[in-house]
Amino acid sequence: MSDYKVIEIKKSVFENNDREADKLREKLKENKTFLLNLMSSPGSGKTTTLGRTIAALKDEYKIGVMEADIDSEVDAKIISQTGVKAIQLHTGGMCHLDAGMTQQGLESIEADEFDFVVLENVGNLVCPAEFDTGASKNAMLLSVPEGDDKPLKYPLMFSICDCVLINKIDTKSVFDFDDEAVVERIKKLNPKAEIYFISAKTGEGMENWFNWLRKQIDNWNK
Amino acid sequence: MSDYKVIEIKKSVFENNDREADKLREKLKENKTFLLNLMSSPGSGKTTTLGRTIAALKDEYKIGVMEADIDSEVDAKIISQTGVKAIQLHTGGMCHLDAGMTQQGLESIEADEFDFVVLENVGNLVCPAEFDTGASKNAMLLSVPEGDDKPLKYPLMFSICDCVLINKIDTKSVFDFDDEAVVERIKKLNPKAEIYFISAKTGEGMENWFNWLRKQIDNWNK
Repeated sequence: MSDYKVIEIKKSVFENNDREADKLREKLKENKTFLLNLMSSPGSGKTTTLGRTIAALKDEYKIGVMEADIDSEVDAKIISQTGVKAIQLHTGGMCHLDAGMTQQGLESIEADEFDFVVLENVGNLVCPAEFDTGASKNAMLLSVPEGDDKPLKYPLMFSICDCVLINKIDTKSVFDFDDEAVVERIKKLNPKAEIYFISAKTGEGMENWFNWLRKQIDNWNK
Repeated sequence: MSDYKVIEIKKSVFENNDREADKLREKLKENKTFLLNLMSSPGSGKTTTLGRTIAALKDEYKIGVMEADIDSEVDAKIISQTGVKAIQLHTGGMCHLDAGMTQQGLESIEADEFDFVVLENVGNLVCPAEFDTGASKNAMLLSVPEGDDKPLKYPLMFSICDCVLINKIDTKSVFDFDDEAVVERIKKLNPKAEIYFISAKTGEGMENWFNWLRKQIDNWNK
């Protein structure tokens, strides 16, 4: 299967995003659908990470993917080739998704059918952190080339994520990146965050991430 | 000199940003101050590029730098060590700067003193593209690790920039990055964009960028 729909999502009409997000989360819980909100800068490797994650988990869970981007269908095309249902959400220039926009996507993908739905948010370390999408859990990627100082500059994003993946560890030989410093900076903002060092390209370290996800999904859907 | 001020900038009160931006540009022209708005994703290398640019041009021009970030003083500290005047603008969570916010920064740095002022915008490929800061010219960095598909996903940013620097070319051996494809994608959005391949780390290719800047500054300030 390599078909995917493209959905032009509309600006939300809700005034109270937090309330809508909580309502959406309750509904997802009721329907036994675990929704992961995956965030990062542009080019940190969200889609590659997702491709490997789907390959590892698709025999265990029924998976659906919502790819959000301002423009293009690049990511939905890649993900649809993994054999899971993928839709592309176009945000009409918006730099993030809120709960109302996420709900439009969930309706369009018919989320009730799935155990596990991923929302790949717009590549942006600022705005997506400010809007609760209603997801069960938030995860983010920080890639080695971006630098170990990013928790200092984008503290809110690191504060709201349940799991932080440090990606592209296969490229460490060509960058100055301090593992200990980045962990210390993240933990200072968010002591409970799970942090895993991975390479979505080579697969290194990804089993820890898969196991974290299995635990979250099973706990949510039980 | 390694002192720098930290300015908490306030949300703009102006309703018509485009009009304010044009007014600011006129004033900069009158005062013979060239303002460059430098944008990119988080971690593309804006500050390193700027460090090399200052080293190359500081004997020719009187340079001031405004570092915008949501939090931290990391960048102003680095830039102030180059010996030019640097200030840190804190955006109070805002994901971009508009003309009114830029003006607050220019007043604080006393822009009239300088031939060449750089605004290092918030690391973000989405929102800064939507707000004219009033700068003389816009430039952006796309780094090799981010991937050659970024013009497809963030078309507005590539459309509004006068110059696009493809940075971190020293890391090409560990990434799949198609030079021709990226140039084609940028040119399709913005046929007039100047595109230079550089490594801010090694200095490769940077002379083209310096020459482009010299031309813009001299033309603006004549």
